[in-house]
Amino acid sequence: MEVIEVLHMNGGNGDISYANNSLVPQKVILMTRPITEAAISDLYCSLIPKSICIADLGCSSGPNTFLAVSGLIKTVDKKRKIFGHKSPEYQIYLNDLPSNDFNTIFKSVPPFQEKLKMQMESGFGPCFFAGVPGSFYRRLFPTKTVHFVHSSYSLQWLSQVPELEEINKGNIYMASSSPSSVIRAYVKQFEKDFSTFLSCRAEELVTGGRMVLTILGRKSEDPCSKDGCYIWELLALALDDLVSEGLIEEEKLDSFNIPHYNPSPAEVRNLVEMEGSFMVDHLEASEIHWNAYDSDDLESDKFKDGGYYVAKCMRAVAEPLLVSHFGEGIIEEVFSRYRKILSDRMSKEKTQFISVIVSLAKRA
Amino acid sequence: MEVIEVLHMNGGNGDISYANNSLVPQKVILMTRPITEAAISDLYCSLIPKSICIADLGCSSGPNTFLAVSGLIKTVDKKRKIFGHKSPEYQIYLNDLPSNDFNTIFKSVPPFQEKLKMQMESGFGPCFFAGVPGSFYRRLFPTKTVHFVHSSYSLQWLSQVPELEEINKGNIYMASSSPSSVIRAYVKQFEKDFSTFLSCRAEELVTGGRMVLTILGRKSEDPCSKDGCYIWELLALALDDLVSEGLIEEEKLDSFNIPHYNPSPAEVRNLVEMEGSFMVDHLEASEIHWNAYDSDDLESDKFKDGGYYVAKCMRAVAEPLLVSHFGEGIIEEVFSRYRKILSDRMSKEKTQFISVIVSLAKRA
Repeated sequence: MEVIEVLHMNGGNGDISYANNSLVPQKVILMTRPITEAAISDLYCSLIPKSICIADLGCSSGPNTFLAVSGLIKTVDKKRKIFGHKSPEYQIYLNDLPSNDFNTIFKSVPPFQEKLKMQMESGFGPCFFAGVPGSFYRRLFPTKTVHFVHSSYSLQWLSQVPELEEINKGNIYMASSSPSSVIRAYVKQFEKDFSTFLSCRAEELVTGGRMVLTILGRKSEDPCSKDGCYIWELLALALDDLVSEGLIEEEKLDSFNIPHYNPSPAEVRNLVEMEGSFMVDHLEASEIHWNAYDSDDLESDKFKDGGYYVAKCMRAVAEPLLVSHFGEGIIEEVFSRYRKILSDRMSKEKTQFISVIVSLAKRA
Repeated sequence: MEVIEVLHMNGGNGDISYANNSLVPQKVILMTRPITEAAISDLYCSLIPKSICIADLGCSSGPNTFLAVSGLIKTVDKKRKIFGHKSPEYQIYLNDLPSNDFNTIFKSVPPFQEKLKMQMESGFGPCFFAGVPGSFYRRLFPTKTVHFVHSSYSLQWLSQVPELEEINKGNIYMASSSPSSVIRAYVKQFEKDFSTFLSCRAEELVTGGRMVLTILGRKSEDPCSKDGCYIWELLALALDDLVSEGLIEEEKLDSFNIPHYNPSPAEVRNLVEMEGSFMVDHLEASEIHWNAYDSDDLESDKFKDGGYYVAKCMRAVAEPLLVSHFGEGIIEEVFSRYRKILSDRMSKEKTQFISVIVSLAKRA
């Protein structure tokens, strides 16, 4: 198996992506398609399973929920036709936390199944769907039952806020001004969580099983580098403003930190190698510019403003965390300021997200 | 395998059960426990699977959702301890229509898993849960992957209202006054649906797989006998009242029929034998008196009134059907009249539901 490491530069043609899978523009999801296609083709050709079990971890609930799965199924169907095989049966597991809106997903399952059938000509399928509620930092499936794991923009979420020995004054995530103990705690939490994730999946995947993970990450080896942390630093600025105006208590802000980590490709590779169950088949980092957002899958252009869209995406991601810590009252104010800060910075400097994409194969 | 056919008489100690699984009192669900326990014990002892896959079809969303599954798991765990085996892994599939409230079920999964772990001592599990949206009159799972199918008070629901050649004047279900073509259409629809159900499950179950089905049925071989149809005849009376008062148009009532069928034990046996994939291990019919309702798992005793509880249960079952046909406007009026009719009849005559319980084993 070929091992390639690429730093893929999207230049000005990229899209903004952020955390909550359902908010990631389709173009960004489609960016990883060649990698997922190669991985599932390899898997199908080497195992030729009669029944192929695919798990999407952190599937969210929105227009993207079926996008990755649909691409995977179509790739397998193309391959089996080339080989003249009978279609495998598909068992699709859609996983997210128990608080995810599975009801909405489930109502879309029958029309999605119908659409697939129409698109795929006769002889395709059947294709079975199941929803799996639970944290992917625990076991979710029986031993050696899953062939392919896909996870898109979910693994940057930690299982919990790291336990901090010192106050992360003025920040809500790692920043260059954070105490070094805070940075160590974040790094350690990610190492623990990601290793646990790998071990759980290693038990669940069949021998030769494959996994493609897309994680919001960073390029630099410095955990506090701008490409990973800047978006949160600017949210911290908006919150700091409210502290200085007395709308938020300083102690309240001091105790607020985000359970999030943006790993570098090298960190991902090291953790995979240390855990030992998987081989890295492909690893790359892609830049996605904040201000290169196409509004085609959101509202009309007249509102187009980089700050508007980034704030909107970040709001969907961060609002639940902010509400549970600070209450509903400050939310409008925070995001109105955040939007202004974002627009200002985006007009003055190069601002980008980094996607780290890794394709893994389970060792024999 | 021993084949027993019993007509189990609950006398005055039974409970009311009705259709919507989540409304069936726990005692009624527990009534079938000896049969499900025997079936899953047989299964475990003959196959000793390392991973045991249990599907609850028509799981609903309420206090009973985990009840049957919990009993099945405990039975297996008892057996494996006797044998000194390592615990199997459990894969539990909870199935219902896509409109079921899976979000509520999924929020209960983590606490249920914790509770199980606490009750079961060390060495138990793991136990994985998945929700499966879809009609059980279609395939739901990949070929030969399921060990045990359980379904409680769901299979009396047909896949659709039968296509009727004549108007079922004054009735909303089969009744002694229904045209014989209406009765034939209902019988035919049940035969088609139940046979489809058996064929689908036969493909999904492993060889030697087991299935225990509890269906709201009847004792008599007459499809229009009182024990199966009476509850709907009384609802039809309430609707007829509203027609005679001009609150419902006669044509509107003429076109309303319930997609429901109460089979007899002999019908169930015949269809199983005709379909051919399963052997009947046990078949029984149990009487449950309408007016022998204990209110322990509903509101306090002060409202206790047979008509009240039966109307309440039937409302949960029938309201969605009535609303989609007649609109919201008449609902309160219908159920207020229905309650009075029920109370009156229950005070004057013996009124009962019949549960048909069948335990099946997949043929080699």
